[in-house]
Amino acid sequence: MNDVLQRLSATIAARRGADPASSHTAAMLAKGPDKCAEKFGEEAVEAIIAAARRDRPALIAESADVLYHLMVMLAAQEVSLDDVLAELARREGVSGVTEKAARGRG
Amino acid sequence: MNDVLQRLSATIAARRGADPASSHTAAMLAKGPDKCAEKFGEEAVEAIIAAARRDRPALIAESADVLYHLMVMLAAQEVSLDDVLAELARREGVSGVTEKAARGRG
Amino acid sequence: MNDVLQRLSATIAARRGADPASSHTAAMLAKGPDKCAEKFGEEAVEAIIAAARRDRPALIAESADVLYHLMVMLAAQEVSLDDVLAELARREGVSGVTEKAARGRG
Amino acid sequence: MNDVLQRLSATIAARRGADPASSHTAAMLAKGPDKCAEKFGEEAVEAIIAAARRDRPALIAESADVLYHLMVMLAAQEVSLDDVLAELARREGVSGVTEKAARGRG
Repeated sequence: MNDVLQRLSATIAARRGADPASSHTAAMLAKGPDKCAEKFGEEAVEAIIAAARRDRPALIAESADVLYHLMVMLAAQEVSLDDVLAELARREGVSGVTEKAARGRG
Repeated sequence: MNDVLQRLSATIAARRGADPASSHTAAMLAKGPDKCAEKFGEEAVEAIIAAARRDRPALIAESADVLYHLMVMLAAQEVSLDDVLAELARREGVSGVTEKAARGRG
Repeated sequence: MNDVLQRLSATIAARRGADPASSHTAAMLAKGPDKCAEKFGEEAVEAIIAAARRDRPALIAESADVLYHLMVMLAAQEVSLDDVLAELARREGVSGVTEKAARGRG
Repeated sequence: MNDVLQRLSATIAARRGADPASSHTAAMLAKGPDKCAEKFGEEAVEAIIAAARRDRPALIAESADVLYHLMVMLAAQEVSLDDVLAELARREGVSGVTEKAARGRG
């Protein structure tokens, strides 16, 4: 199951520089990093509303959109999902990832 | 590398109902779904600002926080990461996940 | 200048229950409170990106959109701009509004 | 009632460059535009959750925070509320402000 993120991440990375007419992902990436961040933000807002509504099916669907557009936002700046997973693993190694991540950055 | 998400998801789920004083994750979950959604939103905003600033190290760190607090927001309503990955896999099976996910829900 | 907010607020309130085909505001309101909150969130994200980009003309334009869609989100639940201004005035009366508002709610 | 926004805007502008220890607003502004945008985003998320929860008293209180931190975010880049109101008035003059604002920028 987990491999779906790796497959998606690879597919998204492969769309960088592709003809914007060839796929929605290529079209998003062609709009540049700001538009990709904007789209990620829209999906985050929809997930928040689903959570506040206690609408679990919507929460699952919107969270899938969040993951997808997080990866597109990363790809727009040539960052991969693996870079982010490595950061999570690094925190895990340092001190127990749950506590570390929960403290976050602010 | 990918297993870090599975380990994190399991750790977070195990903190549900734990003494809020025992960990930051337990403390977040004890505050309820709305506060968890609020925290996810804060991290999403920080990731968006990092993206808009073209600050790749910050984008990686904030995206790690986004993934972590997405899982906490899900756990607050007894939804697991696997539920979301299954949704992504389902879309992949239907029509090519990239296009489907890009169309999203709106 | 300031009266523009009052005029806008009155115009938006007048669109509640109007034929969705009659104006964009009526169409937004007909979609219900969640969609109005979602749209407000999209505009907030765009203003944040403009701020992070140090793009002052965009920041002004997006902030205008934020104010507009804040009023639509309020109108969708029969809350008016005056209710919010009264809350700001109340805080001002209590303890010096700047400090009070800065402390916010969390 | 409406004058509360003008008073607040003037107070916030006056805090630019003040000793960060002198007030919460001065402390926010001293952190710079990105932190002010981040705080605005947090308040926007809280307003969205209040709207999704159909919690009108919270919606009013959070909207007051949104207005306040919108003005702080603007002040951090030497933009005033009047600049934004002028933009709204300009749209009103062009074509009927409701329709124009509803079309927004995206």
